[in-house]
Amino acid sequence: MDETPDDDAPTPDHATGVSRRGLFGWAVGAGAAGLVMGAGGGVVAQRTAAAATSVDPAATAYDFYGTHQAGITTPVQEHLHFAAFDMMARTDRDDLISLLQDWTYASARMSQGLEVSATGAVGGSPEAPPDDTGEAQGLAANGLTITFGFGPSLFDDRYGLAGARPTALERLPAFLGDDLDPAASDGDLCVQVCADDPQVAVHAIRNLSRIAFGRARIRWSQLGYGRTSRTTTGAATPRNLFGYKDGTANILADDTAALDENVWVAAGDEPAWMAGGSYLVARKIAMIIETWDRVRLSEQDRIVGRDKGRGAPLSGGDEFTEPDFSATDAAGAPRIDRTSHVHLAHPDNNGGIRILRRGYNFVDGNTDLGRLDAGLFFLSFQRSPEQFVTLQRALSTDAMREYIRHVGSGLWAVPPGASRGSYVGAGLFT
Amino acid sequence: MDETPDDDAPTPDHATGVSRRGLFGWAVGAGAAGLVMGAGGGVVAQRTAAAATSVDPAATAYDFYGTHQAGITTPVQEHLHFAAFDMMARTDRDDLISLLQDWTYASARMSQGLEVSATGAVGGSPEAPPDDTGEAQGLAANGLTITFGFGPSLFDDRYGLAGARPTALERLPAFLGDDLDPAASDGDLCVQVCADDPQVAVHAIRNLSRIAFGRARIRWSQLGYGRTSRTTTGAATPRNLFGYKDGTANILADDTAALDENVWVAAGDEPAWMAGGSYLVARKIAMIIETWDRVRLSEQDRIVGRDKGRGAPLSGGDEFTEPDFSATDAAGAPRIDRTSHVHLAHPDNNGGIRILRRGYNFVDGNTDLGRLDAGLFFLSFQRSPEQFVTLQRALSTDAMREYIRHVGSGLWAVPPGASRGSYVGAGLFT
Repeated sequence: MDETPDDDAPTPDHATGVSRRGLFGWAVGAGAAGLVMGAGGGVVAQRTAAAATSVDPAATAYDFYGTHQAGITTPVQEHLHFAAFDMMARTDRDDLISLLQDWTYASARMSQGLEVSATGAVGGSPEAPPDDTGEAQGLAANGLTITFGFGPSLFDDRYGLAGARPTALERLPAFLGDDLDPAASDGDLCVQVCADDPQVAVHAIRNLSRIAFGRARIRWSQLGYGRTSRTTTGAATPRNLFGYKDGTANILADDTAALDENVWVAAGDEPAWMAGGSYLVARKIAMIIETWDRVRLSEQDRIVGRDKGRGAPLSGGDEFTEPDFSATDAAGAPRIDRTSHVHLAHPDNNGGIRILRRGYNFVDGNTDLGRLDAGLFFLSFQRSPEQFVTLQRALSTDAMREYIRHVGSGLWAVPPGASRGSYVGAGLFT
Repeated sequence: MDETPDDDAPTPDHATGVSRRGLFGWAVGAGAAGLVMGAGGGVVAQRTAAAATSVDPAATAYDFYGTHQAGITTPVQEHLHFAAFDMMARTDRDDLISLLQDWTYASARMSQGLEVSATGAVGGSPEAPPDDTGEAQGLAANGLTITFGFGPSLFDDRYGLAGARPTALERLPAFLGDDLDPAASDGDLCVQVCADDPQVAVHAIRNLSRIAFGRARIRWSQLGYGRTSRTTTGAATPRNLFGYKDGTANILADDTAALDENVWVAAGDEPAWMAGGSYLVARKIAMIIETWDRVRLSEQDRIVGRDKGRGAPLSGGDEFTEPDFSATDAAGAPRIDRTSHVHLAHPDNNGGIRILRRGYNFVDGNTDLGRLDAGLFFLSFQRSPEQFVTLQRALSTDAMREYIRHVGSGLWAVPPGASRGSYVGAGLFT
């Protein structure tokens, strides 16, 4: 990953493929285009200037363009703002293409710590609404990644995409105990925004939503923080809201072979436009933490299959010791219970299936009963949705199920990364 | 402020003032007390050890004890978890005292990066629920502050406190345009938790809520991030979700004279138990950002009274130049509009009244219309609630009112800091 600002990034060819609404169609006609300074006030330094002169980790910037989209194997950032969008009524294929082009343009700029356009928040005409909403002025890129996905519902007659749908891209099947809220599930499009500064993440979703005006609008969204998934070698494993280390056995970003086997759609997989892409599953999992908190420690450990302090499997060793599912205690019982989360989810007990998890903790305030409305916003990337389905079905006897509730769900096809000068998802339209 | 862990902090005298439920009454009887290691797993390093050996800013720890409560003049941290609690039915004065004692004990420990008790998440009996929920294991104090307040409703017959109510502590009056949701307003008690790590902040509210079991429960809560208030000299002024710098003219933590004049209740003020305390106002202010984003830049500037890029008053100069309300343009009109936010809120136009603002941005997802449910969680500390009331009334003609909606409100008396060996609010009961 490129960790320095890339001056080339924000200069795609505006002349190619601009649809009838065009790039930043919402500003056209307001006289903003081309002006670089407003009469009503000074021009702030471009956000990239702050990034370039800083030695702060906030200056970390990832290239939006590449073989794969950023935000999948990128080291997990501190904050998430995830949004599912639905296309609006009476939009057509050109609207969808123009939206993806405009989103690409703005995302490539924001990923480098720039505003959504050259005139930004204060560089346009004072008599027009600013292109950029401005709250990220002065903030560097903060590791911002913006990852786009296409939901099953996008592949219908509206946009002539029915023939392009990946066979595996259909609404996830019902799982035992699902309690899904349509207002936290599905969507024609999804945008996963991650950054180390929450204002940078929110700024991205807000401006992408604004750019989508008249074409798509947010169906639901989720903020998250306190990462729950270890994705880089040597990083400490963070803890979920049950207090346990989460993600110990995750696929790591430097494990190329495992990524190729389990995460990236291969050139030989169908459809061709998905090569280098992946499938994103989101599950909003409410944790009944007040009930969990009343469970005795030994039972919590039994349910998880690991000890709460160090995260070691109950068969012994340390956090990174492989679980030994054959180990038994003095009474002959398995030391790792067969209904434990570790037992049921482990690749050894699922034909070697692995997924790349990238979840976030969430707290959405509290319920009417004064309980925290909190849990895990589970995100995983996999080469095929079938990997998730298999693992989730295996968890049907999970002892942890008594303390969690799946309340939101979605599946999206994540196209490969855009090449410079093109736009995300372009392969779908050729 | 003490920025190093203080070994004395977590050792209040358990023998004094323990009520019938006692410190950590919810653990008593479960056999957890006194054990330091569970048979089911190893003992993790106390969180303080990580803090002491780290050179990370995460190790910043503020003393819970002191003349004033921490979290008022403390440099604004990155994350907020604010919760209002109501006392439960059939609780009495002893329950309230024991709750404040237990909260003090746990808060003093957590402020130092420790778990809520010596046995914590994994050091107790494996056959008992852990004292600490565990998700902050391995995380340092991260500048955690926990600030407690007493609402007007606490001073009724239930706890024999009617005679102790500060005269000024009554529900805030209705303001023009209020659209208050009872589910985001008021509360017998409030707890403002701020930290530089969101998991640390959430851990504190979660564990304080758990400790309150049977005595008080959360009435409403609010998470916030992306600070909006400059409180320390030399710090960059952050931006609110309208894209403007917010808090330029705030009272700074090193301006002792201004703090004594405007923030701290003086020894001569009534009641005596509030000396060294302050009054906390919370206002949940929804911003209609999609509408704001369609306003032309010159009008946005006019409404705010400052320019969006640099934050300079429209009368000229830079961000820190004092606004000149007498300056006029060529046509003779005031350069700073009389209905601008800066004009109406400025001390010069309000008899010199100042308050200490400590607000946070919030994004609670989105509305059913796909708009961001976002805004400013306004928090201010003042010597008397009258200061806020006067300023808020002055804002009745604020041009910004078209783009905001006050949806939550609360006022609490914030007692002085606890002295070591005592508990927060002890002065109320003597």
